[in-house]
Amino acid sequence: MSEARDEAPRGVFAAALTPMDGNLNVDREAFALHCRRLLEAGCHGLGVFGTTGEASSLSAKERAAALEALVEAGIPGERLLPGTGSCALTEAVWLSRAALEAGAAGVLVLPPFYYKGVTDEGLYRFFAQLIERVGDGRLRLYLYHFPQMTGGVGISVPLVRRLAADYPEVVRGIKDSEGSWPRIEALCRELPGFGVFAGTERFLLDTLRAGGAGCISATANVTARLARRVYDLHAAGEPGEASSAQRRLTGLRKALEAYPAIPALKLLMRDLTGEDRWLNLRPPLVNLEGESAARLLEEARTLGLAEHAP
Amino acid sequence: MSEARDEAPRGVFAAALTPMDGNLNVDREAFALHCRRLLEAGCHGLGVFGTTGEASSLSAKERAAALEALVEAGIPGERLLPGTGSCALTEAVWLSRAALEAGAAGVLVLPPFYYKGVTDEGLYRFFAQLIERVGDGRLRLYLYHFPQMTGGVGISVPLVRRLAADYPEVVRGIKDSEGSWPRIEALCRELPGFGVFAGTERFLLDTLRAGGAGCISATANVTARLARRVYDLHAAGEPGEASSAQRRLTGLRKALEAYPAIPALKLLMRDLTGEDRWLNLRPPLVNLEGESAARLLEEARTLGLAEHAP
Repeated sequence: MSEARDEAPRGVFAAALTPMDGNLNVDREAFALHCRRLLEAGCHGLGVFGTTGEASSLSAKERAAALEALVEAGIPGERLLPGTGSCALTEAVWLSRAALEAGAAGVLVLPPFYYKGVTDEGLYRFFAQLIERVGDGRLRLYLYHFPQMTGGVGISVPLVRRLAADYPEVVRGIKDSEGSWPRIEALCRELPGFGVFAGTERFLLDTLRAGGAGCISATANVTARLARRVYDLHAAGEPGEASSAQRRLTGLRKALEAYPAIPALKLLMRDLTGEDRWLNLRPPLVNLEGESAARLLEEARTLGLAEHAP
Repeated sequence: MSEARDEAPRGVFAAALTPMDGNLNVDREAFALHCRRLLEAGCHGLGVFGTTGEASSLSAKERAAALEALVEAGIPGERLLPGTGSCALTEAVWLSRAALEAGAAGVLVLPPFYYKGVTDEGLYRFFAQLIERVGDGRLRLYLYHFPQMTGGVGISVPLVRRLAADYPEVVRGIKDSEGSWPRIEALCRELPGFGVFAGTERFLLDTLRAGGAGCISATANVTARLARRVYDLHAAGEPGEASSAQRRLTGLRKALEAYPAIPALKLLMRDLTGEDRWLNLRPPLVNLEGESAARLLEEARTLGLAEHAP
């Protein structure tokens, strides 16, 4: 096993929110501050510009510039797994190169998600062409499987196997956000050493026990401390305490899952930090308001979210 | 009724295919040639960079540059309705401005299609912000409704009404590709003078009779002559002959609908023109091959497609 593989991303990753300013542009200062807080709260790394980071609502240029600014602000590139997927192959290539320039640990890549009913062969060619066009030995690619958001366009287990077999130095893992434990378990079992991240901290301990890498999760923006505790208890060989911490973590996640993710998380961040900019969302997303906002905030207080949050 | 409204796009529009070269870049020369052929075959105009034009597979820069090149090659901007939608508001603004610079008759705009379960209010804000950020009195916006491709994110009839009421000088019409005749009929009835284009030439005559503007259709890449005949017979007040031509047109469309649209149309174009470049497709799309390719070509011959095609 190479040294590079030993240093592969692993553990608790927050799919970091992207704070926006009043003009709905990325608030770079606030973004760096948020990422710093998440790392200090125990995140091993950050999945920036994923679904939670409103990546699809930003142009490629905006994503690349914000990533560069984040690293310049002192967030270590090697702790970052930026999303660089795009429906356009050329744009995914450009974004992936920009991520390499920023020193990112790897890139998290959605399949092209506009056309529906596409074949595994077509998706294979997309990823293969991406790898070949980037043409850089430093590239570490993590597949991003989230069929609920991509209108059913997913990365099947046979496709994961084929890509990992054909590009073993590049295709290093997957973020699996489908929410199916049997699928994650199958990936861990069939691909030992592959970096399998569950897309929810609900499966954090199970994934670690199955030999996976950890989780990359939206709700880790507010549950980071507790998620890290689960990881550490597992690493310390404390299965009973790890399970009990996981139960609490799962309870938090379940409560938060009932709300639209990004508006709910931004509302919680506003509540936790007092910073109003957290309510800036690019359309088509809209803020949680009225009764459901009040219910979420009350539930967060009942669950003692503040003590687990960054 | 203003002069601008009298000159509003109307009639048979092909959702033009985008020919690619061997490196899967837009083949600008072939693109201009194809557009010229479509206009000579009777298309009143062209919906370029829509679903059929593989717009989502091209970066924003590629789309804008190819549009500029098309106009420079002599395709009149006023015959073009380029797709300028993007999940990113900032990119849709940039593309729409580029379309205005190219002298386009209007822009065809998808809703942002990554996030699912978004509200009409969120989509309204997207379009409203787009219009306000472009901030150009020349902007003519056509909504692009295609929920099958956008994973269910559609533009509801109340949302169409709200946008048309709030921005009457800008929001001038819709391309409705859902495939529901009652919906198209309702739009024609509820919004007299609104430019309703059916997304299929199946509904061409019905749409014209209901007071709509026409159709913008993928299959018009190969059925343009016959579609134009339907339009002309209707305009000449020949309802019987128009209906009979529409029946033949519907027959063609139904036969073609059985195949994946873009690979099938590119294969037919290769067959009709002998130009091999028509087989260049960006992944995730793949060519039609083997038995289904043979079946399509045979069916096209049986239906006499060559005589209706550009």
